[in-house]
Amino acid sequence: MTDAAHMKQVVENYIKAISTENLDMIREIYADNGTVEDPVGTPQHEGIDAILKFYGAIKGLGVKLELTGAVRCAGNAAAFPFKAKIGPTTMEVIDVFEFNEAGKVTSMRAYWGAENRY
Amino acid sequence: MTDAAHMKQVVENYIKAISTENLDMIREIYADNGTVEDPVGTPQHEGIDAILKFYGAIKGLGVKLELTGAVRCAGNAAAFPFKAKIGPTTMEVIDVFEFNEAGKVTSMRAYWGAENRY
Repeated sequence: MTDAAHMKQVVENYIKAISTENLDMIREIYADNGTVEDPVGTPQHEGIDAILKFYGAIKGLGVKLELTGAVRCAGNAAAFPFKAKIGPTTMEVIDVFEFNEAGKVTSMRAYWGAENRY
Repeated sequence: MTDAAHMKQVVENYIKAISTENLDMIREIYADNGTVEDPVGTPQHEGIDAILKFYGAIKGLGVKLELTGAVRCAGNAAAFPFKAKIGPTTMEVIDVFEFNEAGKVTSMRAYWGAENRY
């Protein structure tokens, strides 16, 4: 369940889940013991409850994600570049997902900084 | 030495170093105890000697790298999307660099798979 086709589908689901504020889809993507570090260098959100709380904060913001390049799959991981539009603000981000054997995301790390927001 | 401006400069140097087959520039980028995992999921090259041996293999291949999006800097890391042209082949890759306090790369992980080569 960590073949490239599965990982790409999960990435597509993630883009859609965020853009439609669908927390049930987010729940499906992550392992129960998953972690989210967004952006890299800040404290991790550990476990599905903390993860859903983190994503719950986007409710009502109208965030729209759009892939800006190919999903790169390697080993048990997928990295992908995208733009996030939040109101008048655009951010350029690269996310890295790591998957377990069940095909669930165990680690998400988001790379972006102040200079990627405009 | 892990500020965004420094990390972006190192990424630019890396793109140039590979595209001009300049191993001295590569040597400057990495920490002595650095590691390279390219692609992710394959055995790491550990230490500067192994790293230089790895990059030495590109000599004469005429590899050309081109950034295809913003360098994303977060914490002590930088992630960037690029295309690698090797003869008639193009590959879409995302690299993640992690830096030490001296501003040298301690970890490089390259995300790409068969479906990113065409």
